[in-house]
Amino acid sequence: MLDNNARGVYAIAPTPFHPDGRVDEKSIDTMVDAYAAAGCEGITVLGIMGEAPKLEAKEALDIATRVIKRAGKMKIIVGVSAAGFAAMRALSNGVMDVGAAGVMIAPPPSLRTDDQIVTYFGQAAEVIGAQTPWVLQDYPLTLSVVMTPGVIRRIITENPSCVMLKHEDWPGLDKISTLRRFEKDGMRRVSILTGNGALFLDFEMERGADGAMTGYCFPDMLVDIVNLSSAGKREEAHDLFDAHLPLIRYEQQQGVGLAVRKYVLMRRGIIASDAQRKPGPALSAETKKEVDYLLSRLARHDQRAQKLAA
Amino acid sequence: MLDNNARGVYAIAPTPFHPDGRVDEKSIDTMVDAYAAAGCEGITVLGIMGEAPKLEAKEALDIATRVIKRAGKMKIIVGVSAAGFAAMRALSNGVMDVGAAGVMIAPPPSLRTDDQIVTYFGQAAEVIGAQTPWVLQDYPLTLSVVMTPGVIRRIITENPSCVMLKHEDWPGLDKISTLRRFEKDGMRRVSILTGNGALFLDFEMERGADGAMTGYCFPDMLVDIVNLSSAGKREEAHDLFDAHLPLIRYEQQQGVGLAVRKYVLMRRGIIASDAQRKPGPALSAETKKEVDYLLSRLARHDQRAQKLAA
Amino acid sequence: MLDNNARGVYAIAPTPFHPDGRVDEKSIDTMVDAYAAAGCEGITVLGIMGEAPKLEAKEALDIATRVIKRAGKMKIIVGVSAAGFAAMRALSNGVMDVGAAGVMIAPPPSLRTDDQIVTYFGQAAEVIGAQTPWVLQDYPLTLSVVMTPGVIRRIITENPSCVMLKHEDWPGLDKISTLRRFEKDGMRRVSILTGNGALFLDFEMERGADGAMTGYCFPDMLVDIVNLSSAGKREEAHDLFDAHLPLIRYEQQQGVGLAVRKYVLMRRGIIASDAQRKPGPALSAETKKEVDYLLSRLARHDQRAQKLAA
Amino acid sequence: MLDNNARGVYAIAPTPFHPDGRVDEKSIDTMVDAYAAAGCEGITVLGIMGEAPKLEAKEALDIATRVIKRAGKMKIIVGVSAAGFAAMRALSNGVMDVGAAGVMIAPPPSLRTDDQIVTYFGQAAEVIGAQTPWVLQDYPLTLSVVMTPGVIRRIITENPSCVMLKHEDWPGLDKISTLRRFEKDGMRRVSILTGNGALFLDFEMERGADGAMTGYCFPDMLVDIVNLSSAGKREEAHDLFDAHLPLIRYEQQQGVGLAVRKYVLMRRGIIASDAQRKPGPALSAETKKEVDYLLSRLARHDQRAQKLAA
Repeated sequence: MLDNNARGVYAIAPTPFHPDGRVDEKSIDTMVDAYAAAGCEGITVLGIMGEAPKLEAKEALDIATRVIKRAGKMKIIVGVSAAGFAAMRALSNGVMDVGAAGVMIAPPPSLRTDDQIVTYFGQAAEVIGAQTPWVLQDYPLTLSVVMTPGVIRRIITENPSCVMLKHEDWPGLDKISTLRRFEKDGMRRVSILTGNGALFLDFEMERGADGAMTGYCFPDMLVDIVNLSSAGKREEAHDLFDAHLPLIRYEQQQGVGLAVRKYVLMRRGIIASDAQRKPGPALSAETKKEVDYLLSRLARHDQRAQKLAA
Repeated sequence: MLDNNARGVYAIAPTPFHPDGRVDEKSIDTMVDAYAAAGCEGITVLGIMGEAPKLEAKEALDIATRVIKRAGKMKIIVGVSAAGFAAMRALSNGVMDVGAAGVMIAPPPSLRTDDQIVTYFGQAAEVIGAQTPWVLQDYPLTLSVVMTPGVIRRIITENPSCVMLKHEDWPGLDKISTLRRFEKDGMRRVSILTGNGALFLDFEMERGADGAMTGYCFPDMLVDIVNLSSAGKREEAHDLFDAHLPLIRYEQQQGVGLAVRKYVLMRRGIIASDAQRKPGPALSAETKKEVDYLLSRLARHDQRAQKLAA
Repeated sequence: MLDNNARGVYAIAPTPFHPDGRVDEKSIDTMVDAYAAAGCEGITVLGIMGEAPKLEAKEALDIATRVIKRAGKMKIIVGVSAAGFAAMRALSNGVMDVGAAGVMIAPPPSLRTDDQIVTYFGQAAEVIGAQTPWVLQDYPLTLSVVMTPGVIRRIITENPSCVMLKHEDWPGLDKISTLRRFEKDGMRRVSILTGNGALFLDFEMERGADGAMTGYCFPDMLVDIVNLSSAGKREEAHDLFDAHLPLIRYEQQQGVGLAVRKYVLMRRGIIASDAQRKPGPALSAETKKEVDYLLSRLARHDQRAQKLAA
Repeated sequence: MLDNNARGVYAIAPTPFHPDGRVDEKSIDTMVDAYAAAGCEGITVLGIMGEAPKLEAKEALDIATRVIKRAGKMKIIVGVSAAGFAAMRALSNGVMDVGAAGVMIAPPPSLRTDDQIVTYFGQAAEVIGAQTPWVLQDYPLTLSVVMTPGVIRRIITENPSCVMLKHEDWPGLDKISTLRRFEKDGMRRVSILTGNGALFLDFEMERGADGAMTGYCFPDMLVDIVNLSSAGKREEAHDLFDAHLPLIRYEQQQGVGLAVRKYVLMRRGIIASDAQRKPGPALSAETKKEVDYLLSRLARHDQRAQKLAA
């Protein structure tokens, strides 16, 4: 089960599809194996970048189950955000029954006031049950719900089953520092894993993050950054990070980012096709060339990209 | 099957619950019977005011099925708006199989540009299948998607299976006039039924609406307004409308409105309990007293309210 | 100077223009005189419905000055909401120097969290100076900033110069009751005047409002409602209110409402032209006919409308 | 005067303040001189990053005038976005009279439909006068107005005085390609300068941009990128860009970015103080250390940063 000392990299997994839109189960297996080989501590499935809304309820549960079975020692977190609590409860119960380590919950975009936010997460925690560890997702750019550090503290304090913050505010570095200060002042500790495509992972680790939960197409590099930073090898961490930053920045574009991510994962042999289930954007020819160019430049600094260089 | 000549009142049905949160099937039956007795042409279930997001997938299909079986000659429209097309397809196919007359689709709040809106509805129409008649829901106040008359024209023109507009813009009177002018200029006719709790039904009929699709707690009065207005009895229509307007206005408040509606339906004996499934707002004591007072004042003008007067 | 015991009706004044777009100073005078004759306690100028953004800085100050000079005993409140604090300070200082009773401040739409809202009003109060009484405008429907009763309490408690709440939430009746309960529990009293075009004035008075601050085209009727309700004449208050409700509801439409308001004020002889400065919507022919029809129906119940009946 | 063949770098200038909040005129002069020395073709003042809303009307005009006088051959563009057309006209006329090359207009956040957007810019172009060249600002992330390429084409086609697009969509690379294709199909050419803190300048140039209009704290490096890219020196352009990317990414954070920018400009001796006029965020101690660290790492690749290295 997920707990508040979780560390390392939890890969945000895409959902692999065949070009005709069917779920690609074999690619689920190769992908899970690749995350394990990369050194990930866990995988998060059915998140915003997992095309979850395009899945039927049974498909979603089947995918989560397959990942869990394949994952070995890795811990699996399942996104259970839903338009209503009935669907959230059904999915949460379903995946916990088959061995998920915890679930992740994002706020619905309609929430506005501090009290509305705190109330919502209290209700959600009740809905999924006190025994289910859950991750609080803080992602204002996409979800348009702004949580102050004080609101996060209220949620953590009132809900013992909240064990992790998926930190994805932007800017968000000072927020990590503030939350860690709150802990020194007595707030219960939670694990903080950071998202945003790793665009600030270099400094997030230095501010007190426990690792990354994001889907950048080189999860092995994320593991390296976390390990280097944890070992105090600051210059090496930044050198490796900076080599990847041009591609990180490119992949982190809203909307087009998932297509870039799947394209590189396909080129790396981790999944068989970069197809998204309809409706989804396709990469323009110019975009593919730019990604290939970025990979060829990356190959000068990171041998993992060498086989991808044109 | 629903077609573009639909007229009259389609009641937006709430979902009746027992106080403990279970679906109240017996109240579904009494409610359907009451809509038939009121003279409704149809019923719309699982809409925004039907607490649809709180229902599990199976519950939703069961409710729609029960309403359809009970409805007799009335036509049943089912709201199938969903976070993704997979869920939309599943629900749409399910309810059409058991005899629904059509489905209703609202735009997701993330849509912004004209092209995004038109594209979305084209995709949705394909997802539910060309043989399924559907209702375009235009409700900017809650959904924050603004459709110009020109955008609606594009959607109607490009999608032959779109047979009805659920008109709920505010202000929206000139929009009806504009769309009817478009028809004179060659746009395919669609049925226009109006919502917004009937707050402007008096003039909407005069602008060219075919009727109302809303859930005001006196559906029998909506039927009267539509009939009086259609018969050219303008003064009688406005007199009846004005007598109900204080309560219409009160029920049309965002958020609290559904609680008021269920409370009056309960007091009228149409459903057994005014409970909403959690999480939902409860009526304050002051609010209940105000509704009772409005009913007692209404009783002076409309005998249907007399048994409810304090 | 405005204080926290203010009661009665403060008319939200439109800005009268000539058809060519120039400010109509003579109509300012006739309008101010009409508000005095109607029994208003005050006037609010340069609000959202005063077309303030279309005025140059000097014009705005000139209009406020002219109204203040003409107003006699009536108290003048000036809307000073601005994109930045420099412009707010300049206008606030300018109008207080020429005799305004206070200023009104709306939150900028970008505010999201409770703390952001409280901080903003603290800064604004400092900018305009401790000696300047001000009105807190709570209008989520248009401004998209949601303030809980608790946030309003924080603002009132931290800012002694905040003397009034312009209440315009929707739904908002329970909010009045909650704030009045806060006062019983020790919160400093503020005056509460209600807006929303008077759509709920009947019950707002009964919940504890001190009066109305809105621009409905029959301010004399608003004064009657406030007086009748204050005198405990409940049935008479509701009878008069209900007679006006069809027009109140029509005028309260977002966007088109100001055009309706100016049209009726023109027909009543209170201003010379219903022109809005460009860009602004014009009333459609159908809309004018509907307003005329509503006035003719109103004339049966309120003799003030008789000279306007077709 | 600005025309549709403008190329190169137009620096988005901050407004320098003394620590006590007064405008720092001497720093305006040193800043303008630095932009000239860096090789900028122009400067844009009073933009979103220029703290324009905090300036009184006279201050804004004085700043623009001082920059224009000092600028020599550089062309000065002035942001004239305002809550209303009266203020826009006043500022636009004022700055064009003293020698501005053109003005820049952003859409108000309330615009939603394609027609609303096109109509707004048509009105704005009329307000500032046909002889005033203007820049269309497309910045959805901050302004929440989404313009499709088709909408931009309509605006360009209908408004001959629109000579430039400030491109700041995200993702936005394909948008540049699409607009350049429109030109091949007959759309009138406009200059396209890109913003977003230069985060994608490397590829924007390759997609067809004419240069950059942004405020990154090394404008001299922006000039180099534009020149290298224009000269076809792709690898050199990317090498230089990548060296700066860690800092570019850091400075591009919403909200905190301006503080970082001013801090580096101060450290470079371009302005005397990094103060923002109140209310404005201050840099945390951690943030300053991170920026210093990024500068020290940059110094290994770019000698312009060497004197700033710790």
